[in-house]
Amino acid sequence: MAGMKLHDLELSGNCYKVRLFCSLLGLPIKIEPVDFLAGAHKKGPLSDKNPFCEIPIFEDGNVTLRDSQAILVYLARKYGGEDWLPLDPAPMAEVISWLMVAENEIARGPNDARLHDKFGYQLDVDLARKKSERILGLLESHLKNNAWLALDRPTIADIACMPYVALSHEGGVPLEPYPAIRAWIARIKSLPGFVSMPAL
Amino acid sequence: MAGMKLHDLELSGNCYKVRLFCSLLGLPIKIEPVDFLAGAHKKGPLSDKNPFCEIPIFEDGNVTLRDSQAILVYLARKYGGEDWLPLDPAPMAEVISWLMVAENEIARGPNDARLHDKFGYQLDVDLARKKSERILGLLESHLKNNAWLALDRPTIADIACMPYVALSHEGGVPLEPYPAIRAWIARIKSLPGFVSMPAL
Repeated sequence: MAGMKLHDLELSGNCYKVRLFCSLLGLPIKIEPVDFLAGAHKKGPLSDKNPFCEIPIFEDGNVTLRDSQAILVYLARKYGGEDWLPLDPAPMAEVISWLMVAENEIARGPNDARLHDKFGYQLDVDLARKKSERILGLLESHLKNNAWLALDRPTIADIACMPYVALSHEGGVPLEPYPAIRAWIARIKSLPGFVSMPAL
Repeated sequence: MAGMKLHDLELSGNCYKVRLFCSLLGLPIKIEPVDFLAGAHKKGPLSDKNPFCEIPIFEDGNVTLRDSQAILVYLARKYGGEDWLPLDPAPMAEVISWLMVAENEIARGPNDARLHDKFGYQLDVDLARKKSERILGLLESHLKNNAWLALDRPTIADIACMPYVALSHEGGVPLEPYPAIRAWIARIKSLPGFVSMPAL
């Protein structure tokens, strides 16, 4: 595992997912802060590593990966056994379906609302808040009857979905009406090796 | 494989991904058309199978799955060996990273533009077209140097990303400026067992 490196922004929930999962797995990873305000991710050498010009960018030896969800899959497969991502078709697909919620509903909801409020992104914040309430409602219903998003134990589904949900107050959507979500976040925070990020 | 069933809409690119991949794998699947205009997906029994109130919904015996990308993962793991989704950490993560492009950039780009133009969805179509051009440019650059999105063979990455890219003209974004994308679509169309959908 020598050579694991994360091109990182401390305030990015997507970067935090990678830091958190490495910590839960007890894996050392070298953090390389990206000068995001200066646009370092939009030019070489970072734009050569990720033509999408986004962070996180993850490197492990000669492997380079973009997208926080894909990086979680890599770490789970390489270092996590089947604990965090099972190989049987149905449970694997169940975990993946929640990674898609992180990439879609949570990105378009609480993540977009936070980008507007905290970082000044020009986007339709009313729509983002409406989408936030929809996905938070769905998560609340699910977590009323399930301790974890997929399966009966923590998986990368929880790691992928938690950060922007837990940060939703930074996009103007408080979590007070969602006790099951708050209890789920507390369960994740009590996992051995948990690390936090600002505002969490 | 008795009992595979797809709650389907013929014009949905997400449903089509599942029909296409089953056909490529030579798997019979029972198609159950959903009365989408009547909102059948928003009430029981479908909303019990998928609380997100979306299609496709996939069933295989006692397994029920939502999200087209997750369904592709299930089918690849259960019926496709490692051909379409390898298990080694780096190539698996590479495939997954493209499933995320289907769920994020392609959904927010050509899929949203088509939802506006073809189905009358109220959304910011100028933004969707701008996002379409961005992701099509990224795909064009990648496919200039690669026959397939991930690895050196067709994988579920290609199945997940192709439909809404190939339908982008239905959202007002023609593919004429993207010869490498058009060649990639033609390669997919020539795979044994390929089936089409309307407007493709």
